[in-house]
Amino acid sequence: MKTTPDTIVIIGGVAGGASAAARARRHSEAAHIILLERGPDVSFANCGLPYHIGGEIPDRADLAVQTPDSLRALLNLDVRTLTEAISIDRSNQQVLVRSLADSSESLISYDKLILAPGASPLRPPLPGIDSPLIHTLRNLQDMDRIKQAAASAQHVAIIGAGFIGLEMAEQLHEIGKQVSVIELQPQILPQLDAEMVRPLEDTLRDKGIELILGDGIDGFEMISNQISAKLKSGKNLATDLVILSIGVRPESGLAKAAGLELGPRGHIVVDSYQLTSDPHIYAVGDVCETEDPILGKRTAIPLGGPANRQGRTAADHIFLGEKALRYPGSIGTAIVRVFDHAAGITGYSETRLKQEGVSYQTVTVNGSSHASYYPGSETITLKLLWSPEDGRVLGAQASGKDGVDKRLDVIATALRGRLNIDDLAHLELAYAPPFGSAKDVVNVAGFAAGNMRDGLLVPVADLASAGAQIIDVRPAASAAKLPVPGAKNIPLPQLRSRLAEIDRSQPVFTVCQMGKTSYFAARILANHGFDARSILGGAHHQVRK
Amino acid sequence: MKTTPDTIVIIGGVAGGASAAARARRHSEAAHIILLERGPDVSFANCGLPYHIGGEIPDRADLAVQTPDSLRALLNLDVRTLTEAISIDRSNQQVLVRSLADSSESLISYDKLILAPGASPLRPPLPGIDSPLIHTLRNLQDMDRIKQAAASAQHVAIIGAGFIGLEMAEQLHEIGKQVSVIELQPQILPQLDAEMVRPLEDTLRDKGIELILGDGIDGFEMISNQISAKLKSGKNLATDLVILSIGVRPESGLAKAAGLELGPRGHIVVDSYQLTSDPHIYAVGDVCETEDPILGKRTAIPLGGPANRQGRTAADHIFLGEKALRYPGSIGTAIVRVFDHAAGITGYSETRLKQEGVSYQTVTVNGSSHASYYPGSETITLKLLWSPEDGRVLGAQASGKDGVDKRLDVIATALRGRLNIDDLAHLELAYAPPFGSAKDVVNVAGFAAGNMRDGLLVPVADLASAGAQIIDVRPAASAAKLPVPGAKNIPLPQLRSRLAEIDRSQPVFTVCQMGKTSYFAARILANHGFDARSILGGAHHQVRK
Repeated sequence: MKTTPDTIVIIGGVAGGASAAARARRHSEAAHIILLERGPDVSFANCGLPYHIGGEIPDRADLAVQTPDSLRALLNLDVRTLTEAISIDRSNQQVLVRSLADSSESLISYDKLILAPGASPLRPPLPGIDSPLIHTLRNLQDMDRIKQAAASAQHVAIIGAGFIGLEMAEQLHEIGKQVSVIELQPQILPQLDAEMVRPLEDTLRDKGIELILGDGIDGFEMISNQISAKLKSGKNLATDLVILSIGVRPESGLAKAAGLELGPRGHIVVDSYQLTSDPHIYAVGDVCETEDPILGKRTAIPLGGPANRQGRTAADHIFLGEKALRYPGSIGTAIVRVFDHAAGITGYSETRLKQEGVSYQTVTVNGSSHASYYPGSETITLKLLWSPEDGRVLGAQASGKDGVDKRLDVIATALRGRLNIDDLAHLELAYAPPFGSAKDVVNVAGFAAGNMRDGLLVPVADLASAGAQIIDVRPAASAAKLPVPGAKNIPLPQLRSRLAEIDRSQPVFTVCQMGKTSYFAARILANHGFDARSILGGAHHQVRK
Repeated sequence: MKTTPDTIVIIGGVAGGASAAARARRHSEAAHIILLERGPDVSFANCGLPYHIGGEIPDRADLAVQTPDSLRALLNLDVRTLTEAISIDRSNQQVLVRSLADSSESLISYDKLILAPGASPLRPPLPGIDSPLIHTLRNLQDMDRIKQAAASAQHVAIIGAGFIGLEMAEQLHEIGKQVSVIELQPQILPQLDAEMVRPLEDTLRDKGIELILGDGIDGFEMISNQISAKLKSGKNLATDLVILSIGVRPESGLAKAAGLELGPRGHIVVDSYQLTSDPHIYAVGDVCETEDPILGKRTAIPLGGPANRQGRTAADHIFLGEKALRYPGSIGTAIVRVFDHAAGITGYSETRLKQEGVSYQTVTVNGSSHASYYPGSETITLKLLWSPEDGRVLGAQASGKDGVDKRLDVIATALRGRLNIDDLAHLELAYAPPFGSAKDVVNVAGFAAGNMRDGLLVPVADLASAGAQIIDVRPAASAAKLPVPGAKNIPLPQLRSRLAEIDRSQPVFTVCQMGKTSYFAARILANHGFDARSILGGAHHQVRK
């Protein structure tokens, strides 16, 4: 163990900074640990902010995981809130800070400095952007302001349909607001592939939330007590309150001014111990880049889990040096609940793999959250992406009303272990009727992926890609209820006896409800010499109501 | 691809056998696939049987996943129910079968034979064991008989507190029966370590279910309309109905008579393609042994998941030969729900590691099912076991009211990937307040394990192993509510200022509610020169109400 540094200064007292402070104190009672925080609060539950606005977390105090006083008492930290770091003098190892209470400035010397300033919500320089009716949500004060403004608002416009935008849409709807969501991309949740978020889009629309997709903001204008958002399409949307949730930008100005190396998008570059280009300065959380352990590319994941664990890594390296556990990179696991539906992702999406020019294969399957014969099971749609070279899993997305988090966590673990599609096929997951299935949807995705590799499953990604000869193998009643346009219905049990009705001279595309019996049908047809392909995901996934 | 075999005969039509048949049909439309089943049903949901008895699955037909007719229609199988295989003539590749309807016998030739006869409930040759009031539960007919017998019973005795025994205890209680559970081991669920099942034992007793632990059965005696179970302790237990659930025995008599190689406990020995010692005969499911991929030992896991996937493996090998995906072995993941509480295991328990003489380390931590500031979170207790040599995970057990299945599945995936404790520390799991925590309990277990390796956490397994000087660092109110016998209360925030009250000349043991702040306290004390150790799991886990 290294000689204990006298003074550790940490800039930023929320997820990454607070974790670093706590971990440092476990290593040493002697170190002077100074936690600088520009705001009045430390270590609050920023992921919980929307749920206080919506009333699900009624007591605001529940969001204050720790207070400056509790951190002093428990960790003997020198907590200085309302204190802004102005500049870093690297050669003298000093930080210039300013008190926001009295504007006094002072110099703090450090042996080790940890930068955990986070990222700030993007606020593009549009006309009218400074209106007091336009809010972003980062801290408890933002939350208080939005909660107060929402009290008298009838309509709220949410700009940006990412995770926070959707949580806000849900929560504001729950307290009786009319909500419009505006998103530049032609889909909500652009982190996920378009077809995977359609059930969420349906859920939002079913609740009466207006989705304005593929449209952006050109500016804002105050019209009496309301604000009008001017859309790129030429539309104008009058509203009482705007929530801006279009993304975040790393707060790396201090680091940049100090000459620390930054990445292409302004994140601080760190090594696997979270050390910056200065051997006495670490950076953790939303402000820094990290490596994606799937493809080895640089990435930045502004989420609480990585921030907490990076803070821990930095503190470990201060006290353990090379013996510290390296931060293994971030794979980007995320989930959102929108009313009774959840959707999430781990690893790469198809969109990102295309952007990166990485070859991949993909399959989408449906399964039950638990044994379908036991009450309360819900359908989970799972999209799996893997490398055609070695079958290694590259990412997955899941969507459904129950058990989405569990499947994402299983595949996040598989990504950490660099497992392949065959490993997924043979995962031995917990099965009792209330909890799972003898063949879990993750196993089924592994089976389907293996079937594709082995030529047993010849898939078609969607109905639009299918040729003219489509055979719907569902029971007649199901086929009539949610018809597949242009399809001929031959229920699976009749297929073998009705082969003569199918044109052998052209490809045949099979479809069913969930994408399972269409595979069975395609196998029957292929084994009888047809050029047969199964439409992935089934009518459940492909046909919009 | 091999030449298609003309005839595949499968003995046993439930999990493994039905899966093998279905998979074989995907490979070939031409093969003659004969499915022999001694009972009247095929492919039924045997894991769902208790829930029909308890009324949670009200419609019996929901348990018939497939029927002989549906298998004929969908898979073109030659399904022969009520047909018992009598013997195998390996040299002529024939099975002698007997119709249970008319006792007629016939010979069926096979190119490939798949044995999937399952395992039968143990029924030891005790005095009175043949009483009609003593039931076992394996199939729909057993279920019907128990359901009928339970209707008029007031009291039910369940012999054996394994997974099925506990499910039956819950379900019979739910329909108003008085229930006693008798278990030879001094704990319920002997698959898990004793301390991990105590919350379940509490739950059962709270519901009024009698637990008779560490006691066995010497025999039964009819006394008028009741049956009296004579216990080894000398007690007699009068009851209206006995459910015998003390384990299963592989139905390998046919295989043994045919000269196939059997393992030490009577299971059929197979390779990783499920091939027996005869190159034309496969065995799948409860009847066969497999390898445990954690320590490479032979094991037999009589559960539905492995059976299904083994059936698939055998069919693949018939058609793909060496190109088939090998069965990777069974790690033994299992879960049970008992009222509002769940408990389960994946991989090795501490008890089994001791039996095998394998060195291990272990830690037990508590965490929240999701963010503790979001409503509805429940405590999960997680016990982790790993190899001290390389940190590789060997097994885990979890217990709690919510999210137990998810954590078991994550660690089951980690076991498949041979991940170590540091990998668990850095798993990036799905986090939004309704679903998880920034530091999930699995991460926390990984942290704690790493802390033990690195000497930061010096644990004591339980209160009984602690020395005399115990410091309870909980707030005074919590310490008073669930007192730790013999402990002195110094709340954590006061610890640094009250060090003088602690005797430096002897070890000090710290305890708290959940085992987390006691670790913090032990770090403070260790950094101040004390010989300090933290009691794992906290009062929550250690002190019985």
